[in-house]
Amino acid sequence: MRITPYTRMVFYHETDRMDIVNHSNYVHMMEEARVDFMKKIGVGYDELEAQGVLLPVLNLSCQYKNSLHFGEHLTVYTYITKYNGFRLELHYDIFCTETGKLCVSGTSAHCFTNAELRPIRIGEKFSELHAFFHSAMEIEYL
Amino acid sequence: MRITPYTRMVFYHETDRMDIVNHSNYVHMMEEARVDFMKKIGVGYDELEAQGVLLPVLNLSCQYKNSLHFGEHLTVYTYITKYNGFRLELHYDIFCTETGKLCVSGTSAHCFTNAELRPIRIGEKFSELHAFFHSAMEIEYL
Amino acid sequence: MRITPYTRMVFYHETDRMDIVNHSNYVHMMEEARVDFMKKIGVGYDELEAQGVLLPVLNLSCQYKNSLHFGEHLTVYTYITKYNGFRLELHYDIFCTETGKLCVSGTSAHCFTNAELRPIRIGEKFSELHAFFHSAMEIEYL
Amino acid sequence: MRITPYTRMVFYHETDRMDIVNHSNYVHMMEEARVDFMKKIGVGYDELEAQGVLLPVLNLSCQYKNSLHFGEHLTVYTYITKYNGFRLELHYDIFCTETGKLCVSGTSAHCFTNAELRPIRIGEKFSELHAFFHSAMEIEYL
Repeated sequence: MRITPYTRMVFYHETDRMDIVNHSNYVHMMEEARVDFMKKIGVGYDELEAQGVLLPVLNLSCQYKNSLHFGEHLTVYTYITKYNGFRLELHYDIFCTETGKLCVSGTSAHCFTNAELRPIRIGEKFSELHAFFHSAMEIEYL
Repeated sequence: MRITPYTRMVFYHETDRMDIVNHSNYVHMMEEARVDFMKKIGVGYDELEAQGVLLPVLNLSCQYKNSLHFGEHLTVYTYITKYNGFRLELHYDIFCTETGKLCVSGTSAHCFTNAELRPIRIGEKFSELHAFFHSAMEIEYL
Repeated sequence: MRITPYTRMVFYHETDRMDIVNHSNYVHMMEEARVDFMKKIGVGYDELEAQGVLLPVLNLSCQYKNSLHFGEHLTVYTYITKYNGFRLELHYDIFCTETGKLCVSGTSAHCFTNAELRPIRIGEKFSELHAFFHSAMEIEYL
Repeated sequence: MRITPYTRMVFYHETDRMDIVNHSNYVHMMEEARVDFMKKIGVGYDELEAQGVLLPVLNLSCQYKNSLHFGEHLTVYTYITKYNGFRLELHYDIFCTETGKLCVSGTSAHCFTNAELRPIRIGEKFSELHAFFHSAMEIEYL
């Protein structure tokens, strides 16, 4: 499967007094890229939640390498690093579109839950979903 | 009734590259001050919502007079300017605690709705709530 | 001059517990649409600031008519309603791309300042800029 | 040295459609707690920056254990886990004040830089600062 990365401009309200994007906003970008990635592999986040499946964050990490600035754009490549029906782990590389520099590498780990936030297993009951996640492990970017 | 104003420090993540608090964040402060004000007059926002009453924003306005900076605190005085059981209008004055300067004056107008966002009237059914809002029209600050 | 409106998806982190986009985020969208609009009429916000011209917000207003939800996109049409070299006033209509409903109408007023936030006049010194703003008063959307 | 933890209410605008605090906002809380912690150990963040010393984030991590909800407060305990004049590492435990539950454990690593974001060493030149950080490694909470 071949998809395009997530991209958008840096927002003015994302900068802070250091004149760079505040470090907290990369967590927003990772969330946005995750939603975009899932739509592109065939799993709409909103449809997932409409089916009563939530995907809360168990943990996340960010490594800050270079700063994004106002006037620039960001491009995010998202990869599944682990998926077993219970747990989903993702890796994100956030680049500055203009300079091509890697700005932030991040990870997030998720479990699947029902609407009451109790863990569930994606498998028989959500076999289509299961297939989408599996095939997305071998994603390539255009 | 005499209450204290809402106060907190300015957050680093609220500043932008102009080295001042980004104008969007004053809308956050107004929301925070509204929740704090309602708790102090006896109407917890969370209890209100637990009773199935929501208070969506119909409109708002902000007048920017002076900037808040990182390292400063803000103090917000909230006033009810109109209340008739259907509609609630509030005025906010956001000051810099350190300099005493008025930074932003704002207003917000709200209606009362049920959980499906249909307008309802606070009156017989929520008589205690009604009384709280009425008495809060003559609030004084300590 | 004919330009395209600003558009993007609604972010998960923009929703609140009412399951709609929190009212504060429309102020972000207006800022984003303003930056996008200025780029499209030929005035890069970042280039403007690089020339030492800032554009702080004097006041803003929002009228909330319908809610945006996660899974939807927004489309923003921005119009200059006043420009005289000292002051810039804008109007924004934020639509739900999918339903075509008008969600929020907003306005913002700005002055031009130097880096020390002292008011300046766009005119002889920034004649190109002046021409851009003038021609943008008769913008049409594709 | 004995200090108090950082505490504030959960903001409405921090919740998302899952009816819990959006995971990105814990990064804000960690930043706020860090600023508060440094003020309490004698190192004002704003004074630090006024001296030309910045403290950018190199990496961070969050482990999500329980959710914060609107209507609750948060209490953050911040600890220095490493300090050697070049690098500062912090650990944060974010609790729900009402239930006493640990909601998020986080870490952040920082270097010291000058205003041009070049790494510097806190030592002879900033000996007072150096002493503050050292003594803060044995902080206790009231």
